[in-house]
Amino acid sequence: MKFIDINCDMGEGYGAYTMGSDEQMLEVVSTVNLACGFHAGDPSIMSNISALAKSRGIAVGAHPGYPDLWGFGRRHMQFSKDELKHIIAYQIGAAQAVALSSGHRITHVKAHGALGHLVADEPEACEAMAETVASIDPALVLSVMAGTGLEAAAERHGLTVAREIYADRAYLDNGRLVPRSRPGAVIHDALEAARRVVEMIKASAIITESGVRIPVAIDTVCVHGDTPNALSMARAIRAALEFAGVTIRPYVVK
Amino acid sequence: MKFIDINCDMGEGYGAYTMGSDEQMLEVVSTVNLACGFHAGDPSIMSNISALAKSRGIAVGAHPGYPDLWGFGRRHMQFSKDELKHIIAYQIGAAQAVALSSGHRITHVKAHGALGHLVADEPEACEAMAETVASIDPALVLSVMAGTGLEAAAERHGLTVAREIYADRAYLDNGRLVPRSRPGAVIHDALEAARRVVEMIKASAIITESGVRIPVAIDTVCVHGDTPNALSMARAIRAALEFAGVTIRPYVVK
Amino acid sequence: MKFIDINCDMGEGYGAYTMGSDEQMLEVVSTVNLACGFHAGDPSIMSNISALAKSRGIAVGAHPGYPDLWGFGRRHMQFSKDELKHIIAYQIGAAQAVALSSGHRITHVKAHGALGHLVADEPEACEAMAETVASIDPALVLSVMAGTGLEAAAERHGLTVAREIYADRAYLDNGRLVPRSRPGAVIHDALEAARRVVEMIKASAIITESGVRIPVAIDTVCVHGDTPNALSMARAIRAALEFAGVTIRPYVVK
Amino acid sequence: MKFIDINCDMGEGYGAYTMGSDEQMLEVVSTVNLACGFHAGDPSIMSNISALAKSRGIAVGAHPGYPDLWGFGRRHMQFSKDELKHIIAYQIGAAQAVALSSGHRITHVKAHGALGHLVADEPEACEAMAETVASIDPALVLSVMAGTGLEAAAERHGLTVAREIYADRAYLDNGRLVPRSRPGAVIHDALEAARRVVEMIKASAIITESGVRIPVAIDTVCVHGDTPNALSMARAIRAALEFAGVTIRPYVVK
Repeated sequence: MKFIDINCDMGEGYGAYTMGSDEQMLEVVSTVNLACGFHAGDPSIMSNISALAKSRGIAVGAHPGYPDLWGFGRRHMQFSKDELKHIIAYQIGAAQAVALSSGHRITHVKAHGALGHLVADEPEACEAMAETVASIDPALVLSVMAGTGLEAAAERHGLTVAREIYADRAYLDNGRLVPRSRPGAVIHDALEAARRVVEMIKASAIITESGVRIPVAIDTVCVHGDTPNALSMARAIRAALEFAGVTIRPYVVK
Repeated sequence: MKFIDINCDMGEGYGAYTMGSDEQMLEVVSTVNLACGFHAGDPSIMSNISALAKSRGIAVGAHPGYPDLWGFGRRHMQFSKDELKHIIAYQIGAAQAVALSSGHRITHVKAHGALGHLVADEPEACEAMAETVASIDPALVLSVMAGTGLEAAAERHGLTVAREIYADRAYLDNGRLVPRSRPGAVIHDALEAARRVVEMIKASAIITESGVRIPVAIDTVCVHGDTPNALSMARAIRAALEFAGVTIRPYVVK
Repeated sequence: MKFIDINCDMGEGYGAYTMGSDEQMLEVVSTVNLACGFHAGDPSIMSNISALAKSRGIAVGAHPGYPDLWGFGRRHMQFSKDELKHIIAYQIGAAQAVALSSGHRITHVKAHGALGHLVADEPEACEAMAETVASIDPALVLSVMAGTGLEAAAERHGLTVAREIYADRAYLDNGRLVPRSRPGAVIHDALEAARRVVEMIKASAIITESGVRIPVAIDTVCVHGDTPNALSMARAIRAALEFAGVTIRPYVVK
Repeated sequence: MKFIDINCDMGEGYGAYTMGSDEQMLEVVSTVNLACGFHAGDPSIMSNISALAKSRGIAVGAHPGYPDLWGFGRRHMQFSKDELKHIIAYQIGAAQAVALSSGHRITHVKAHGALGHLVADEPEACEAMAETVASIDPALVLSVMAGTGLEAAAERHGLTVAREIYADRAYLDNGRLVPRSRPGAVIHDALEAARRVVEMIKASAIITESGVRIPVAIDTVCVHGDTPNALSMARAIRAALEFAGVTIRPYVVK
């Protein structure tokens, strides 16, 4: 029997602002990446999502980003390696304590947006990310894209990794995402996305746009929560996986 | 033999801004209250102070405040009890993780400025503070003014308290501080402040402006770091205590 | 022939966040109150709304609020009279220059949320508001509730006022709004709100919940943009006014 | 008889934080570049500096920067040309209205830090800067480094420019500053800086580190306010210029 996790970024509102449909998405996913207040999220939203996730048996992780609410963490900013460690540690800790005081606990870390791109491959940033997570709690799982420098850094620091694939993004033959600027980079059709996810998980491989199969361990499927058809796509993927005999559950089981 | 702690708010700069003389003050105090980024402080400053404190055997605590950098946390803001819990938890966790990733650990919590005034006596806020600290880590010590509602709330939640007196503030006969608006509220003379501190610690009592003695356990003396003669006053107090045979050490000893 | 203005708060998003349906609401109103980046809004949103309004002949005013994005300007904050003047001036100027650089110009000022409540009646705040507007440009119209201290302050400073009524709020016999905490304070039915607005404008009077008529000059009707049925209520009010022979146009005609 | 202006960035504090010695520096300079609240400064500081400058006959300009208080506007951030226009307009307008309500008026614009570097030469940014200033008020003077793309853009938009030299920076033979990373880039000796300034102004030329003279019109000398010996260097430069028979006065004379 096969298991897979479905993860989604959540808690990305701020004060009176909302982003996506967190309550409905919580019925579909098994793991939440919780915005930590720098690029999105505020302490009350973090607490509410933590409590809701706990009540449904859903795992919650810290989702640190750049300190840029205006740019939603999607603009690159210049930080030294030490500064990266400080902003990552700050956000993980904030999420840990808010989750604890809401009855849940943080079990993984995944970087957001431009910070996520930076820590995927840039050597100093990979090291900053893995080193910081390990220094706070070596039991925290680090969410990575298979084959990136971050996966190697996590292993150097003795961290467990969760390797993820993206449900709605096409892959190049080197295993990386097709840049958003190219046609076909983003898959908008829910059924097509669902079909691809099932195929990759059954094959334990990334299947590229040219049809190449790159064998990888897949622990989790990332679905988006802030696109127009986010909810229907996530539901289609979950249904297709269950129909294919795959059980949805968090990759971190307490 | 008598022991006492000297505590001071630190890390209250932000980015390019500095506040007080943290490095020199670290040579005088035994405990640091670390600003957590809401009313002052940023992740890099928090990390630097944590590392410096560790290297000198000085204890570090989280010093949460209102989210108001402009007002330095001195303006009251309206928050519900739940929101108070969320902003307190967020800041404690941020400080815990930054301290951990810098080789130190957070051992107490003390509220800052207008939040500090709120949680001293307002029943819901006392409860929010004590409940939050206990939910994150019941081993965290809560810094309180002796006789306040916060001391009672801490006891209800099984928390250890550290009772503090202020070196440079006059006391009313009910044990509270003379309001800053009244003449004589603040003691500006370093030697006078030092004399008073030694007298109160020897007597294990708050000595009010009219001379009344209110017996209290005193665990720590709060000195200020952001006044013009902060450093010389802190040094005078430490010297006077040591001359009187009192040993300065953190109230939380690992 | 009778003229009336319909005004609505707009541009209340921030970065990736949206609030209300500004583009559709611009088809219904004749005047926009533009958030200035303190409680909501950012420079790009301000520019976009200004340009859209210009292209449709809609007037734009500055809508300053407290510096509290998290609380959407609805939480009271403590500021001295001088500080109030500074934050009001700052926001008016920001809106003026962004509007100018987008081809439009600011023709009125209306305070937002908790700042709006403060400057309605608190004497120092009324004075701060009127004095600041007059010092920047005495041709700016000040939006007021009829009968408030702000109306008197505006007159003292030689400012033209626009007196407004609220489409979806019940009135007390003293001409003030029924507090939101009381039943019936907010009118949720679009047709009922439209009927009341037409009645008050035809009578040139505020009609209170007990039926009392308070004669006032009415220059503009405030409709909300961020409630669930905001758009349908605004459309019903406009249709009812036009059906009753009232022409909708900005109170500031260039 | 020769005239020259001395300009300095001021109002770079924030809330309880101070930066430099603005009050004393106001006794030395003839023009102030006023931080506008994005990288530094707040509405009250802006108002205070404006009023002080007015009382001393000192000109005030808007000094817009990136929205990055933490990084003091020294970190580059990604903005589109339109976004640049919006953040520049916003800050100019804010400064204009605060100055007006404090009895003074903004007469020039100079970009700060990383934004200043961007608009010096990057074609789209030069255009954004000049276009925005011209759209707000074509009488505003644009402060530029002689020979940069910004000077050309200002001329295309019919703006008057003020060409500045830096008192404490060495120049390359192409007329640009020696990068701070190279030895000798920054001149720390007050008398040496004063000597160089007088030499360049007498020669109406930039004198490079190799001794090459590049003829330029020089309208103003930039002195720094936030370095340890800022005040003594500024005083030495002013004294040397006056001793050499040069009169210090604002380049914008009302």
